Amino acid sequence: MRVVVQKYGGSSVADTEKIKKVAARVVETRKRGLAVVVVVSAMGKTTDQLLARAREISPSPSRRELDMLLSCGERTSMALLSMAVSELGYQAISLTGSQSGILTNDRHSGARIIEVRPFRVQDELEAGRIVIVAGFQGVSYKREVTTLGRGGSDTTAVALAGALGAEYCEICSDVDGVYTADPRVVDSAELLKSISHEAMLELAAHGAKVLHAECIEFARKSQVALYARATFGDAAGGTRIDRPEEVGELDVAGVAGTKQLVRLRASGERSMDRMLAAAAEASLPVLHLDADHEIADLWFSLSDVPDWASVREQLLDQVQVEEGCGAVSVAGDFFGRNAAKLAKTRSVAAGVGVRLKAMATSPLRATLFCAEEDVDTLTQALHRAFRE
Amino acid sequence: MRVVVQKYGGSSVADTEKIKKVAARVVETRKRGLAVVVVVSAMGKTTDQLLARAREISPSPSRRELDMLLSCGERTSMALLSMAVSELGYQAISLTGSQSGILTNDRHSGARIIEVRPFRVQDELEAGRIVIVAGFQGVSYKREVTTLGRGGSDTTAVALAGALGAEYCEICSDVDGVYTADPRVVDSAELLKSISHEAMLELAAHGAKVLHAECIEFARKSQVALYARATFGDAAGGTRIDRPEEVGELDVAGVAGTKQLVRLRASGERSMDRMLAAAAEASLPVLHLDADHEIADLWFSLSDVPDWASVREQLLDQVQVEEGCGAVSVAGDFFGRNAAKLAKTRSVAAGVGVRLKAMATSPLRATLFCAEEDVDTLTQALHRAFRE
Repeated sequence: MRVVVQKYGGSSVADTEKIKKVAARVVETRKRGLAVVVVVSAMGKTTDQLLARAREISPSPSRRELDMLLSCGERTSMALLSMAVSELGYQAISLTGSQSGILTNDRHSGARIIEVRPFRVQDELEAGRIVIVAGFQGVSYKREVTTLGRGGSDTTAVALAGALGAEYCEICSDVDGVYTADPRVVDSAELLKSISHEAMLELAAHGAKVLHAECIEFARKSQVALYARATFGDAAGGTRIDRPEEVGELDVAGVAGTKQLVRLRASGERSMDRMLAAAAEASLPVLHLDADHEIADLWFSLSDVPDWASVREQLLDQVQVEEGCGAVSVAGDFFGRNAAKLAKTRSVAAGVGVRLKAMATSPLRATLFCAEEDVDTLTQALHRAFRE
Repeated sequence: MRVVVQKYGGSSVADTEKIKKVAARVVETRKRGLAVVVVVSAMGKTTDQLLARAREISPSPSRRELDMLLSCGERTSMALLSMAVSELGYQAISLTGSQSGILTNDRHSGARIIEVRPFRVQDELEAGRIVIVAGFQGVSYKREVTTLGRGGSDTTAVALAGALGAEYCEICSDVDGVYTADPRVVDSAELLKSISHEAMLELAAHGAKVLHAECIEFARKSQVALYARATFGDAAGGTRIDRPEEVGELDVAGVAGTKQLVRLRASGERSMDRMLAAAAEASLPVLHLDADHEIADLWFSLSDVPDWASVREQLLDQVQVEEGCGAVSVAGDFFGRNAAKLAKTRSVAAGVGVRLKAMATSPLRATLFCAEEDVDTLTQALHRAFRE
């Protein structure tokens, strides 16, 4: 049985008309003789609307209750999509994260997939059905509903693709692939035909929104080939994300900017320890940490912290909190190890009058931290300097 | 531990402001030293909106997928209510039908509760928490999500009250209790202070919308005292539904009308058998059956058959289908055994020019079947004749 996994984002299933079109696309794939597993997100802005309602009730709702609330979004869209596929004369069944065997840890509102036991999915595929799976959700060993944090549906899709030994996994959205920079910020950004898992991981972790970092990490580990494609566009287009030996490494794959970062700062060894303990207590996903004997800075993204209001209260006793930060990253083949290129990033920043708060590198990436309002300017300047 | 169960209907949790008010009412009860279990419906018209979306996609969606879809409504409201109770400084936890141990048969979109195993609910109550349970839903022995059909949240509440040995169960809605007839149809309808389980069961089964028949049946079997009350009204008002020895039997408790009935008719023994087999196949809940050697009539309500379009197709081969029917019932102490009263109902109908299609009785009730458009006229006339 040749299996493919397709994931459809919220804008692709925003209303019943679009759901019908997605059903047709799914059936097209089935007609090519493939067993199809579909992972869906919540319809349109459903998740944001549910979050807004929660905030009308409580500035920092319990994460467990948030998960219970948010998991409804995907359940709604998967049931509707399953009905739409049936209307086209193909057998379909929708399965929750729990029914699909998506097992997670118990970190509510940001759980990690620990294991996938897709026995029910396999049974249904063998019975000839198209299987529609709720993205973004799983079940903890305590049998509680968990959600995976932003971009979690991508992760569901890739994790399932790995567990099922799928031929490939398609991530379908309203964006037609991975660009060298956000086209809304950089006019001359170009669509990439292909990119390695590793470079994509760097871009995704640092602001490229088309794919989520954790999803790429799963794809890299299980060696699943990914396609980022437009749902209602060229079925053979988009960007292929695969092993470097398949797609090669690009000198500079792209530039990604991210806003809404927060810097926590602690001075002195003991307060550094307290800062890390507090961050662990609040389950803050660390974007970057740098420390010397005097000062430790911990950076994270507000988009990873749904209950920031209450977390902030806890932290203020222990550390300095600086909101309104941002960062721009450049990713490419050994970019972060090339001192000449790193020097050039600094002069580019200076050239457009952007004051850097900090800098950090990995072998494939350099990240420049700045004020939130400088992110777009710096993105444009770095793209001009390295990609044009 | 003294336990009470409160159920809040859709209009009571229609928006976040109302959810906050319900949370305050729940906390008021908790402050009186009672352990509180809350059963919630979906917010406002959520269920109808979800159904409308399903119908945009398919005229007769699979019942399993409908259940997956509709169960989201209650999950949303319970998570929000749990957050709102927490905001007031009380510990709360929301539990799905499955987590609450609501076990049902596997008749999707109209499942019956077979057993309640409220171990988790009890644990949470003992830990001092207010437990918020999703109404209208359960889990089948196949571990599939099921829904209970219209009014199912009332049934959830009463079944839990029975299993927990609750002192009483409150059904809170935008209606302040049980009336002698629908006040929108009969101006002079009066609020009943109390009514027996048995008489209420007859009214509910035949159109009184304030409480659902299955919920009363559960209350009758487990001898749970029920109160039908307005959520935002007099906390000690409303109607008490209890054992006849507690509340007495009324000569005429009330008049209830129901529309959207369908009559199936078969002529000849073999076609009667085929009709019943087809009805069983389609899981039609029979409202009334009468048969002689020549003709069998089977009545049911469209509100019990979410996939009527496809069921209708199957039936048309076998039987005559008459849509657009209705019925008016009068319930009271041995009303259905009193020939004089039965005769009076017929003369009342004739007096207002309503042609009866059929008549049926039980010890506590008489039901007059008529055309849908005659239901209101007949309700008013019977209320005038028997209650005023």
